[in-house]
Amino acid sequence: MMIKIDILTLFPKMFTGPFEESILARAQDKSLVEIETHDLRKWGLTERKTVDDRPYSGGAGMILRVDVIDRALHDLKLKINNLKFKIILLDATGEKYTQAKAKKLSKLNHLILIAGHYEGVDHRVHEHLVDEVISIGDYVLTGGELPAMVLTDSIIRLIPGVLGKDKSSFDESHKKPGYLEYPQYTRPEVYHNWKVPKILLSGNHKEIEKWRNVLK
Amino acid sequence: MMIKIDILTLFPKMFTGPFEESILARAQDKSLVEIETHDLRKWGLTERKTVDDRPYSGGAGMILRVDVIDRALHDLKLKINNLKFKIILLDATGEKYTQAKAKKLSKLNHLILIAGHYEGVDHRVHEHLVDEVISIGDYVLTGGELPAMVLTDSIIRLIPGVLGKDKSSFDESHKKPGYLEYPQYTRPEVYHNWKVPKILLSGNHKEIEKWRNVLK
Repeated sequence: MMIKIDILTLFPKMFTGPFEESILARAQDKSLVEIETHDLRKWGLTERKTVDDRPYSGGAGMILRVDVIDRALHDLKLKINNLKFKIILLDATGEKYTQAKAKKLSKLNHLILIAGHYEGVDHRVHEHLVDEVISIGDYVLTGGELPAMVLTDSIIRLIPGVLGKDKSSFDESHKKPGYLEYPQYTRPEVYHNWKVPKILLSGNHKEIEKWRNVLK
Repeated sequence: MMIKIDILTLFPKMFTGPFEESILARAQDKSLVEIETHDLRKWGLTERKTVDDRPYSGGAGMILRVDVIDRALHDLKLKINNLKFKIILLDATGEKYTQAKAKKLSKLNHLILIAGHYEGVDHRVHEHLVDEVISIGDYVLTGGELPAMVLTDSIIRLIPGVLGKDKSSFDESHKKPGYLEYPQYTRPEVYHNWKVPKILLSGNHKEIEKWRNVLK
């Protein structure tokens, strides 16, 4: 197994669809990666399993409690016997996620992702309990669950053996941002009078390379 | 119903978890929104239901075919009797998604999201078949499915009635980027010697406002 990802969430069922289909499912089948979701409510307080409370000094929304998250992390960390691990909070105020970050994280052996209320986690979690706070973009979501899936997907596709050989070598040959920026076409050559650019059918690889570089 | 979102995808099952939990599920239960996923393979070619092919002039990965997507869009558009609709392709090369865009899209009545191969859709789709091409961030994913979920989640939470009153008015009062940028805290007041800032317990709202603005 190359990497283990633990995800702390209030909605573990949200992850069933995305993680049981497509490349993520195949990576788990091949034992290249292990993903485990944990219901944060398990560490909730009192019989009501409370995990959040109203913010000090007013404001909208509920804030995830620092003590609940600390207890959960404590239990999860007990099972980690690897030094190359990081704890990441998904939060709208975090550092912007990039492909460079995905590459760095894909080199680790263990990640714990906290997918809490996207707009409200007690700031002591940011300060004392996590290594990084990450946002996937400048937009507001209902929770950190989709961001946790985005991180997981982008990291796992970089693990050797997860994608086909074609794709991996493709990634190696494009240093950044990691994907093609020029237009791509496939058959049919003509559709509704819309044609594939002639240059791409020419077989002149030098000219094609030039054309692609101009369009980047 | 306030908004209908059709999603074209090769992995419709990926959407079951995210769309059957949390706020997205409640929004659908309240009939504020209708989300329908469609298997792109239904419009695939020949008995093999082919949807993609190798790129012209080489390159890695498979490219989604323009004719397949055109046929799918044709059928979906037949059912739309509303002028306020848009067709959006999720693609790594697209325009960066923002909260401002989420707000604009939330005013429409109908969206068609195309969640294809994130790295390869025939460029004629970009040019002729969609209104917008959107990327959720500078990182590479295995498909457009998670980006389609991100758009859906960010748009739906802006539909009146989906979130509680607190939250909606909160959104109104923060013009951009739409979320709090200052630290938030909840109980307990002290944990592991980590304290909630005294100012937040003071009840002096003028001073608290000042403190928050400094930390933004």
